[in-house]
Amino acid sequence: MWHCQEVTSTSAVGAVRQGSLRELNLALVLGRIAAAPTPPSRADLAADTGLTRATVSAVVDDLINGRLVSEAAPAPRTGAGRPARGLVLADHGPAGLGLEVNVDYLAACVVDLAGTVRHHVVHRADLRPVSPADALTRLAGLAAGARAAADREGLTLVGATLGVPGLVGADGLVRLAPNLGWHDVDVPALLAGHPPLVEPVPGVPHLVVDNEANLAALGELHAGPPGPRSFLHISGEVGIGAGIVLDGALFRGARGWSGEIGHIPIRPDGPPCRCGGRGCLERYAGQEAILTAAGLAGADLPADTATTRLATLATAGDLATCGALHDAGTALGVAVSAVVNLLDLDTVVLGGGYATLAPWLRPPILTELSRRVLTTPWAEVTVRPAVLGPRSAAVGGAGSVARSIIARPAGWLARSG
Amino acid sequence: MWHCQEVTSTSAVGAVRQGSLRELNLALVLGRIAAAPTPPSRADLAADTGLTRATVSAVVDDLINGRLVSEAAPAPRTGAGRPARGLVLADHGPAGLGLEVNVDYLAACVVDLAGTVRHHVVHRADLRPVSPADALTRLAGLAAGARAAADREGLTLVGATLGVPGLVGADGLVRLAPNLGWHDVDVPALLAGHPPLVEPVPGVPHLVVDNEANLAALGELHAGPPGPRSFLHISGEVGIGAGIVLDGALFRGARGWSGEIGHIPIRPDGPPCRCGGRGCLERYAGQEAILTAAGLAGADLPADTATTRLATLATAGDLATCGALHDAGTALGVAVSAVVNLLDLDTVVLGGGYATLAPWLRPPILTELSRRVLTTPWAEVTVRPAVLGPRSAAVGGAGSVARSIIARPAGWLARSG
Repeated sequence: MWHCQEVTSTSAVGAVRQGSLRELNLALVLGRIAAAPTPPSRADLAADTGLTRATVSAVVDDLINGRLVSEAAPAPRTGAGRPARGLVLADHGPAGLGLEVNVDYLAACVVDLAGTVRHHVVHRADLRPVSPADALTRLAGLAAGARAAADREGLTLVGATLGVPGLVGADGLVRLAPNLGWHDVDVPALLAGHPPLVEPVPGVPHLVVDNEANLAALGELHAGPPGPRSFLHISGEVGIGAGIVLDGALFRGARGWSGEIGHIPIRPDGPPCRCGGRGCLERYAGQEAILTAAGLAGADLPADTATTRLATLATAGDLATCGALHDAGTALGVAVSAVVNLLDLDTVVLGGGYATLAPWLRPPILTELSRRVLTTPWAEVTVRPAVLGPRSAAVGGAGSVARSIIARPAGWLARSG
Repeated sequence: MWHCQEVTSTSAVGAVRQGSLRELNLALVLGRIAAAPTPPSRADLAADTGLTRATVSAVVDDLINGRLVSEAAPAPRTGAGRPARGLVLADHGPAGLGLEVNVDYLAACVVDLAGTVRHHVVHRADLRPVSPADALTRLAGLAAGARAAADREGLTLVGATLGVPGLVGADGLVRLAPNLGWHDVDVPALLAGHPPLVEPVPGVPHLVVDNEANLAALGELHAGPPGPRSFLHISGEVGIGAGIVLDGALFRGARGWSGEIGHIPIRPDGPPCRCGGRGCLERYAGQEAILTAAGLAGADLPADTATTRLATLATAGDLATCGALHDAGTALGVAVSAVVNLLDLDTVVLGGGYATLAPWLRPPILTELSRRVLTTPWAEVTVRPAVLGPRSAAVGGAGSVARSIIARPAGWLARSG
C-alpha cells in the first residue's frame, strides 16, 4: 500500500468550484483506498471522509470506470444482506516506467498503482566505453520491452523516470556523471529521437531525469509500512550516492546536487579519485575497491554478479572477502559518522549493492558510529538494508509516477475519457 | 533592520475574531516598520498593508504607547502641510538578553528591537576546572550587570537565551559539552536559584538554552541585508560547532543535535579527541591545535586574546602562525568539502574566532573546495566571515528574543498595558 499525502478536505478551503470539488473528492477517496490497511467498502469510505454515501458511490464509479480502482472479491457472507465489497487499487490501470543507467548496468521496470513491480529487466554491461547516445539507445530498447510487457498486462504507462549516477539539472541535463565519464549530456534531447513510450497525462511529466540515489531514497520513503520520516539512503554501486530524506521530503540542496557522499574525503591524502579529489569514500568502499581488496579485481564481473559473488564468498568465510567488506564498512562508517554528527539522523539505509552486503557492512559501520558520533550514548542509530533491495532507483522512480496519479487522479481520468 | 516573516493578511484567513484581528494588525504594521528600508509614515503603511488610515493610526498609537515604535525626527519641510513623520522601532522598549558559556569565556549582551547591541560584556576565564553550578553563578552575575545596563537605558528584558558548546535537549538539559566536561547539566534548574532577570511576557519563553553554534547561525540569518536562505555557519572556538540553515530555518536534526562538525573525522586514525573518537576536525582546526602549531601552546591566552594574537602574528608574516592557520584552513576545507558534497550548500560563514581569522583560513578552504567538491566547476561556494563577527551566539540569541516580540507584539502589549 502507498502512504499518500492527505488531500485537504473541502471544508477547509472554503468555496470551491464544482470542477475542482470533484477533483478533490476523487483524490480524497482514491488516497484513502490507497492508504487503507484492508480494502474499504463504500460505507467505510463515507464514514472515513465525511462525504455522503451517494457522493462516495459516484466517485467510486468514476474511479472504477477510469481503471484506478477495482472491487476485491466479496467477503464470505456472515449475516443478512449483501456483503460489502472492498475496494483496491486497480492492477490494470496507469503505471510508471522506471529506467536507470548506471556504470555497469541498465534497468527498466514497470510499477503499478499499488506499488507492485510488474516487470523488471536488468541488462548488464560496462557502459564506460559506450557513448551517452549509444547507452541511451540501448536503454530505449529496454524501455520498449517494458512498454510491451505493460501492454500485455493491460497497464498504461503514463510517465517515466530515469536515474543516473551523477549531477542532474532541473532540465534533465546531466552535468557530470564521473564514473560514466558523462559531461553535459542532454538526456531528454537524446531520448527524443526514440518512439514515445508513455501516454501523455495532464499534470504528469513525460520524463523526469534525476540522480539515481535520490530516486532510490524516494522509493524507500514510500515502500513498506510507514517508517522514519528522516533518513540517509546510501546507494552503493561502482559509485556511491546518497539521498537525504528530511521530514518526509527529499533534501536536494541549493542546486539539486546534494548527496554526493561518495566524495566525502576519508583520507585527505589518499589515492586520487575520478572526481579530481583524493581519498574519497568511493576509493575505499566503492564496488571496485571492494573487489580489488577481495582479490577479484579484473574478473570483470557485472555489478550484481559481483555483489552476489562477494556475498557468497563472505558467507563461506573467505578471509580476503570478509576483510575487504570489513574495511569498506569501516570507511563507510567514517563517512556516515560525519553525516550523523552533522545532521543528527537516526536511520541509515543501505541500498544498491550495499543492500545485499549489509550483513557484513553493518557491524563495522556501527562500530565507527559508536566511536565517532557524539550522541550514540543516548540515541541509537539504526543501520538497515533497503526494503526495496538492490537496483531500487528504477523501482523508486516508477513508484513516484504511480503516486502522482494517486495524488491527482483527475488528470488521468480527463485523458481516458 | 530586521527582516521579519510576513504576517498573513486578514483577508486570507476568512473570519477572524476581533481580538485576534487586532493582534494580526499589530503584527502586520510592526513587521512592516521593522522591515522598511527607510522609516515609513502612517500613509505609507496604509498603502503598503491595505488597512485604512484610521486603522493604521490606531495601531500605531498602540505601538507607540507600548514602547514598540517611536516617531523619527521630522523630515525637512519640502512643500505645503505638515511633513509626515517616519516610524522606527523603539530604542527604549523590550529587549533580549543573550548569554553564553563557552570553554574559555562567559558573555552577556542586550539587543534591542532594532537588533542593535546595547550592552555586551565578555568575561574571560578557563571554565574547564569550574563546576557547572559555579560557572552558571558567574554567568548570573554577568547577567545581572546586563539587566542593570538595560534598566539604565530604559529597556525591559523580556526573554533570555543561553548558548552552550554542546548537545542541548528541548528541556534545556545539556546532555554533553565535551570541551567543558559537562554531562547532563540541568541549566534551568541551576539558574532558578538566581534572581529573575526578565519580565514575563505571554508567548515569550523565559529562558531558551541552545547550542551556541545554532544561536550564532540564527543571528547571522537575520543580520544585515537579506542574504542566502541556506548556509553553513561554523563557530570556531576551543570546540568547533556548526549551525545549518536550510531555506531560512535552522535544521536541528532528529533530536536537535545537528551541526557537530567539530567531530567530522579528518584522519580516521589521527590523534584521540575528547569525544572518544580519533582525528576529529577539532584536533586540526580547534583553537588549541592552532595555538600549538603556531608555537603559542601553554601561553594560556583567553580566547579572543588568542585570536587577536594569531591575527597580529599572521599579519606580520610570522611563518609558524601562517603555517598553523594554513593547516587549520586545509582541515576545515576537507570537512567543509564533505558538507558541501553532501548538502549542496553555496555559502559557508566563518563565525566565532574564525571570523577574525577568515583572511588566513579562507584561501586554503577554497583550495580544498575546488579540489574536492564535484560541483565547483559550475557552482561557486562563497566563504565569508560572519556579519556579526566573533562571539555572535549571545548576540544572535538576544536578537531572536527581540524578533519574537516583533512577530507577536500583542503579548508584550497585554503585559505592559
